[in-house]
Amino acid sequence: MNDTPHIPFDTVFIVGGTHGNERTGVALVQHWQQRPAEVQRETFGTQLILANPKAVRHNTRFIDRDLNRSFLPRQTGDSTSAAYEVGRAREIAQTFRTDDRGKRTFAIDLHTTTAQMGITLITNTDPINLTIAAGVQTVLKGARIYCFGDGDRINSCLRAAADGGIGVEIGPIPQGVVRHDTLATTADVVQRILDILEAFNRGHLAPPDRRQPLYLHDRHVRYPEVPPGAPPVFIHQEIQGRDYTPLHPGHPIFKDLANKVWSYEGTETRYPVFINEAAYYHENIALSLTRKVAWEALGDV
Amino acid sequence: MNDTPHIPFDTVFIVGGTHGNERTGVALVQHWQQRPAEVQRETFGTQLILANPKAVRHNTRFIDRDLNRSFLPRQTGDSTSAAYEVGRAREIAQTFRTDDRGKRTFAIDLHTTTAQMGITLITNTDPINLTIAAGVQTVLKGARIYCFGDGDRINSCLRAAADGGIGVEIGPIPQGVVRHDTLATTADVVQRILDILEAFNRGHLAPPDRRQPLYLHDRHVRYPEVPPGAPPVFIHQEIQGRDYTPLHPGHPIFKDLANKVWSYEGTETRYPVFINEAAYYHENIALSLTRKVAWEALGDV
Repeated sequence: MNDTPHIPFDTVFIVGGTHGNERTGVALVQHWQQRPAEVQRETFGTQLILANPKAVRHNTRFIDRDLNRSFLPRQTGDSTSAAYEVGRAREIAQTFRTDDRGKRTFAIDLHTTTAQMGITLITNTDPINLTIAAGVQTVLKGARIYCFGDGDRINSCLRAAADGGIGVEIGPIPQGVVRHDTLATTADVVQRILDILEAFNRGHLAPPDRRQPLYLHDRHVRYPEVPPGAPPVFIHQEIQGRDYTPLHPGHPIFKDLANKVWSYEGTETRYPVFINEAAYYHENIALSLTRKVAWEALGDV
Repeated sequence: MNDTPHIPFDTVFIVGGTHGNERTGVALVQHWQQRPAEVQRETFGTQLILANPKAVRHNTRFIDRDLNRSFLPRQTGDSTSAAYEVGRAREIAQTFRTDDRGKRTFAIDLHTTTAQMGITLITNTDPINLTIAAGVQTVLKGARIYCFGDGDRINSCLRAAADGGIGVEIGPIPQGVVRHDTLATTADVVQRILDILEAFNRGHLAPPDRRQPLYLHDRHVRYPEVPPGAPPVFIHQEIQGRDYTPLHPGHPIFKDLANKVWSYEGTETRYPVFINEAAYYHENIALSLTRKVAWEALGDV
């Protein structure tokens, strides 16, 4: 961290509705649009964005393609695409852009999940993003950091178009539902991030507590394939709801209604996340695996 | 009950996917299609139906209109409608019809809900349907009977097209998700209903335990209206997840993010159900109220 140049963020974007059926972020953005003082700080401007208003109106994750997988430069630069989300990604990336201003933008992207993810902060391995996420962890015990090494998955997400950013995932909550507790938790996380960004801008960013683990994305695990019309294979009761609980080799992960069981075939213990997330069925993803690593494992963080 | 003519059911339909994003019933129908012996009994034939296959493929509640509100004779008889579900309702009603056979059909329609409804058996006030539901309650403690007096809401649902029927609602579970526990509970309820139908056909239907309450539908409660783009009013934390818990006059039911609270303005205690059901947002329905009544209250049951 000592070698990282300290350039303050001049604009912080709070983004809701990147997925139109995750209503918590939509509700909070609409609330703060009426009460902008609640999310203002002294050292930066705060802007509120409803990322996918058409998907919000239709209460669906996306219209043509997942907006949160649409921010690679080759995607936003594809002028031949008629997809609604490609146009939105282009507009949002333009809004986030700071090339000719010499300052920096930060995006807080609000999501929910049907999985038992508690408070999860999703980042790339940028040291500033990680340190800001660690700051949230210091004040909100139980919050976890799920980080992604370089690759299309993390580089195509909305906040990759800003100079810094954190994805906030709160769950479990069904799609399409607004709940008091998820709203309160998400609002609290946003306020903490804003406070930490303010401290960062003033040069007072606290170093991370390096005793806390990081959960580094390893890979997706897909459901076993079944013929069309056959009953689905589903998450085994021994891992349902056990996100971040160690998954050891040979542990049951799937079963079917005839009580056939599939076990984890990996050779090393992993930490599953997004177990039984509704939004990932269409990609056939049942869960993802992470490695629980120390800060030092990420190298020069 | 003593005066009710005893005509056995000759065919029992187990129906999944009436709502395409309620995957539990879909999975069970697909399972039993492969293992029909599990749902066979001696005194009737069992048929498995995927009610809205197009909505199942799209993982959505419905394509053009809610299939489970499409079975009034004036709806199935409307030859001018191009709605997919009107065509499906017509086909299913034809399948259920017994006019020229002199026997009777029974439909078990499998649903899930995002609300904390536990095991809920939904019926009209037909004495045989109620008594069959009460039989489930006898073997599955905690199951509740939610019944509707005569009206379009109950007469337009899928099972109204059969001679007898029960709607099975299990929750909470998010839309689009398959879970081991919801599958097991739903399968268990179906097996119990089949056993009770078998007993009925043999003339051995046990009388209901009239000490158990019935929850009689009273009315829907809608969210307070907000201008377009304004943050939503949501379910107050004191009733979230408290389906079937007494709601007394003056009790908080809604709040907004500015902490404004709306209270229950009724003058009599009611029992809320389907609190914060995701599928009802599009109708602006926040919850429904029931009256907890004794069997005697329904008259000649």
